[in-house]
Amino acid sequence: MTSVSDGPSRVTISDIAERAGVSIGAVSFALNGRKGVSDKTRERVLRIADEMGWAPASAARSLAESRTETFGMVLARDPRNLGAESFYMQFLAGLETELAQRGYGLLLQVVPSREEELATLQKWRRTRRVDGVLLMDVTLDDPRVELLAQPNALPALVVGDPSVAGTLSCVWTDDASSMEEAVRYLAGLGHTAIARVGGLAHFAHTRIRDDAFTKQMSRLGLSPTVLRTDYTAAEGARATREALASSVAPTAFVYDNDIMAVAGLAVAMELGRRVPDEMSLIAWDDSVLCEHTFPRLTALSHDVVAFGSHVARRLFGVVDGAEPGHFKDSTPVLIPRASTAPAPGSA
Amino acid sequence: MTSVSDGPSRVTISDIAERAGVSIGAVSFALNGRKGVSDKTRERVLRIADEMGWAPASAARSLAESRTETFGMVLARDPRNLGAESFYMQFLAGLETELAQRGYGLLLQVVPSREEELATLQKWRRTRRVDGVLLMDVTLDDPRVELLAQPNALPALVVGDPSVAGTLSCVWTDDASSMEEAVRYLAGLGHTAIARVGGLAHFAHTRIRDDAFTKQMSRLGLSPTVLRTDYTAAEGARATREALASSVAPTAFVYDNDIMAVAGLAVAMELGRRVPDEMSLIAWDDSVLCEHTFPRLTALSHDVVAFGSHVARRLFGVVDGAEPGHFKDSTPVLIPRASTAPAPGSA
Repeated sequence: MTSVSDGPSRVTISDIAERAGVSIGAVSFALNGRKGVSDKTRERVLRIADEMGWAPASAARSLAESRTETFGMVLARDPRNLGAESFYMQFLAGLETELAQRGYGLLLQVVPSREEELATLQKWRRTRRVDGVLLMDVTLDDPRVELLAQPNALPALVVGDPSVAGTLSCVWTDDASSMEEAVRYLAGLGHTAIARVGGLAHFAHTRIRDDAFTKQMSRLGLSPTVLRTDYTAAEGARATREALASSVAPTAFVYDNDIMAVAGLAVAMELGRRVPDEMSLIAWDDSVLCEHTFPRLTALSHDVVAFGSHVARRLFGVVDGAEPGHFKDSTPVLIPRASTAPAPGSA
Repeated sequence: MTSVSDGPSRVTISDIAERAGVSIGAVSFALNGRKGVSDKTRERVLRIADEMGWAPASAARSLAESRTETFGMVLARDPRNLGAESFYMQFLAGLETELAQRGYGLLLQVVPSREEELATLQKWRRTRRVDGVLLMDVTLDDPRVELLAQPNALPALVVGDPSVAGTLSCVWTDDASSMEEAVRYLAGLGHTAIARVGGLAHFAHTRIRDDAFTKQMSRLGLSPTVLRTDYTAAEGARATREALASSVAPTAFVYDNDIMAVAGLAVAMELGRRVPDEMSLIAWDDSVLCEHTFPRLTALSHDVVAFGSHVARRLFGVVDGAEPGHFKDSTPVLIPRASTAPAPGSA
């Protein structure tokens, strides 16, 4: 496992100048983001510096011989959607609990695209801005995983399933088991028409939940309905409304976050469907919000704050050179509250 | 206005060594956080360096001649409470929208106490970790305002009222006007027993809302009820429950955030009080959540994402040496939805 304190870098500015066929001065200008070289030259120099695994030597090292005391997290998300669900703030809060104890800060950057996400990670490595990074919202064949598995890459931890972590360490939750539990619970209450209101399809954890839902429904001889959303309350409401208007309306819904479940509950009330008598709802993840609706929401409960702290501890491990590993966090468990009941007519 | 690009620092390590009566080497060890000096010496050197306004010169400057491309935010809050309300994530999302456009990151640190908050700000200045800082949750006589008003301090922006910003720039919202509007609106609907469910008393903005509520109620010849909470859903529910159990139960409630209003709505439903026929509720700030409850919540609406972006732009201004100023953001406006109606018996 590569660590930032692994002795001096062997690649020098002269090496880069030679490979790029430009002067040492030009390389220096390019690496320090100063004027004096063309954009084209700057891009070539930065690319070559990246390829060669260059990191600033003396200047950076004399400023902070060892650590930056900062972890980085770059998110390719629409900033407006970040605020809607409670997951991220809970997760950040958990990270901060651990970081604060060690005097670390979190460098958070939200970017508009996956390309910018990669560029930011490369820039952070080049400028030694952080000691390590967290990878969130991992997709299948995620290019960040490949980038960070290279020698001289920033120490990194995947927050997600081992199946998409490659050779990197990861912290994960067994979402498949949780989903199976939710389906078994609803089927046990006599529900046969169950809908999953899922999040964005390109995220690996969405795919894992989709698969688990579909397989468990099939095992029980039931026909699965998967509704696609972008995690927003508006989409959760729309999906619920459309499903309830269909010829075989579901009598139970499993939502991929808390805010969509709350929105689904409001749609049910507006349409005069009694919850839980006529319709059951399950939220995932559980949150303070789920405990303060009426009726209170049955939820798959996972201590997201503790999860964030666990992730921070594992990233400290990675930075300190611990053996890579796949670390399982606690599995979300079903907390039955007042939003689930036997299916209508099944009693 | 002090700026990080204001030419070279005039205080040298020798100056500090002379004042502290120790060797230059000892100062260097202390400032760079290396072993080789006693804790006592380290503390004295750091204190003297702070007093003299020392900032690292050559090493830091040669690494990044101008900017760190990072803004800092340190919060003295219980991390578990940070995730409950949507304000912070919306605000962060707004900041990030602006920062992302300029390639800036946000260094976020959550600390357990006000003392640690001050220490973190001092450390950031000493190590040039950030280009500027935001002050949130400003209190009356806030020691951070005094610290950051000193020469050589980090460029800073207060997110809060001009009355507590001292000589620093600030971005603020006219909460007093918004509160007056909410009270007038409820009084216009015939409500006479109105309760404010307020946040933490030591925050300046809580005090401003308290005062505006009390004054406006008095102007209308009504007796004000202010209930104190810590912004959590549990406290919002408790305050609502207690108020409804009192001999003159309020018929209208104005909550200091969205999650407490949602919790209050659930309490009303549980107790069989019909909203809005028997009880009116107003949330502040408005959020996606308020639009997806049933009935939907009347709210004081403020675009918190846009507010965050505005704050980021003003901090760029401060760092660039703009004239200090008190910048007013848009005033939260009342959005009547389905949770407010004429007071019972007033029609």
